Amino acid sequence: MHQESHVTSSNIVRDIIIGMSDGLTVPFALTAGLSGVLDTNHLIIVSGLSEIAAGCISMGLGGFLAGQTEIEHYDSELKREYEEIEKVPETERKEVEEIFIAMGVDEALSKQVTLQISQDKDKWVDFMMRFELGLDKPDKNRAYQSAITIALAYLTGGLIPLAPYVIIANNQHGFYWSCVITILALIVFGYFKSKVTGQPLLKGTLKVAFTGILAAAAAYAIAKMIS
Amino acid sequence: MHQESHVTSSNIVRDIIIGMSDGLTVPFALTAGLSGVLDTNHLIIVSGLSEIAAGCISMGLGGFLAGQTEIEHYDSELKREYEEIEKVPETERKEVEEIFIAMGVDEALSKQVTLQISQDKDKWVDFMMRFELGLDKPDKNRAYQSAITIALAYLTGGLIPLAPYVIIANNQHGFYWSCVITILALIVFGYFKSKVTGQPLLKGTLKVAFTGILAAAAAYAIAKMIS
Repeated sequence: MHQESHVTSSNIVRDIIIGMSDGLTVPFALTAGLSGVLDTNHLIIVSGLSEIAAGCISMGLGGFLAGQTEIEHYDSELKREYEEIEKVPETERKEVEEIFIAMGVDEALSKQVTLQISQDKDKWVDFMMRFELGLDKPDKNRAYQSAITIALAYLTGGLIPLAPYVIIANNQHGFYWSCVITILALIVFGYFKSKVTGQPLLKGTLKVAFTGILAAAAAYAIAKMIS
Repeated sequence: MHQESHVTSSNIVRDIIIGMSDGLTVPFALTAGLSGVLDTNHLIIVSGLSEIAAGCISMGLGGFLAGQTEIEHYDSELKREYEEIEKVPETERKEVEEIFIAMGVDEALSKQVTLQISQDKDKWVDFMMRFELGLDKPDKNRAYQSAITIALAYLTGGLIPLAPYVIIANNQHGFYWSCVITILALIVFGYFKSKVTGQPLLKGTLKVAFTGILAAAAAYAIAKMIS
């Protein structure tokens, strides 16, 4: 039970990181780019919110459908493995043996271990799924949860760079404040991301901040160039 | 060698799918949203290109840095496993035994297999990495290749919905043509994605098209509402 709760919480953390990485970066970059070419804040806010809606749906729904596909794929492979151990048990036993031989176990012992594993059909199929196909059982509820977590994290991240344009009427001032609070947010997010994923704190934080700043600089440069 | 080339090509395909899923969806949705509120195509194109630049960098560089982190994480875990089998070999052997017992192998045989695997330190560590920690050796060149593939796929996907606004001066006509060619592109992409990932073709195609259309509808509705 402890293990399970650990896995669940780190999946949520992983989804928050996925959503917030893009959420803090893309809407920030887009609004920064547009702030250099638009006269009023209004259109910056409209563009920013449109982008956030599109990003939430693309990442959230996209993630949900990908999760569903993963479950379907796992289930169809599982069915096939059960069929195969019925139809061609000797071929399947040979496959298990070869996995053990590759691990450095001699042939005689590999045969013995294989014989024991293949006593229990569920354990045998489980072995094939994990060690032959490299597939872990996907959690059926994860797809929903993951979609909502990613979308909310994208929304939260995206509203941060947008807030100054809503509060401050002047779009140049809005741009400065958007840079200030978003870079701060990127640093805070980068720090927690590094802590959670066990990366060196300074390096991890700088990576996140640098990605956001580079994306914004590129969007700004492109918008300036073509307008 | 055959196996390896198979894995490499499907990694590229996977990266193309990742980049193009969002690339066909988010710039399409954003420009569709803005076409309802902007009078000239010029700003739609500026916004679209800014978004594509931001998206390419966020997804490409983000993916690159994530890949680097994965390599660093793998290397540090590898180093720790080598240290552990030197320092506490009995504990590590016990862990291997427990993995086999969980597979349905009896205690005596688990001990024997463990003894054989632990003869060769490289194979032993390899076993611990894959079966205790569930880590596969990341390819050092993958991070670069993956970043470039994802960014180019995003760019390619993003230019499709933008093209009509560049070619057609009237923004309403641009919007209609953008919808037509992007929905066609989503269908073609959804078809190939389903084929490559082994999903049912009709269902898989509809999923991709539906995500793009829903994102565009949401962006359009939000832009209309607040402008």
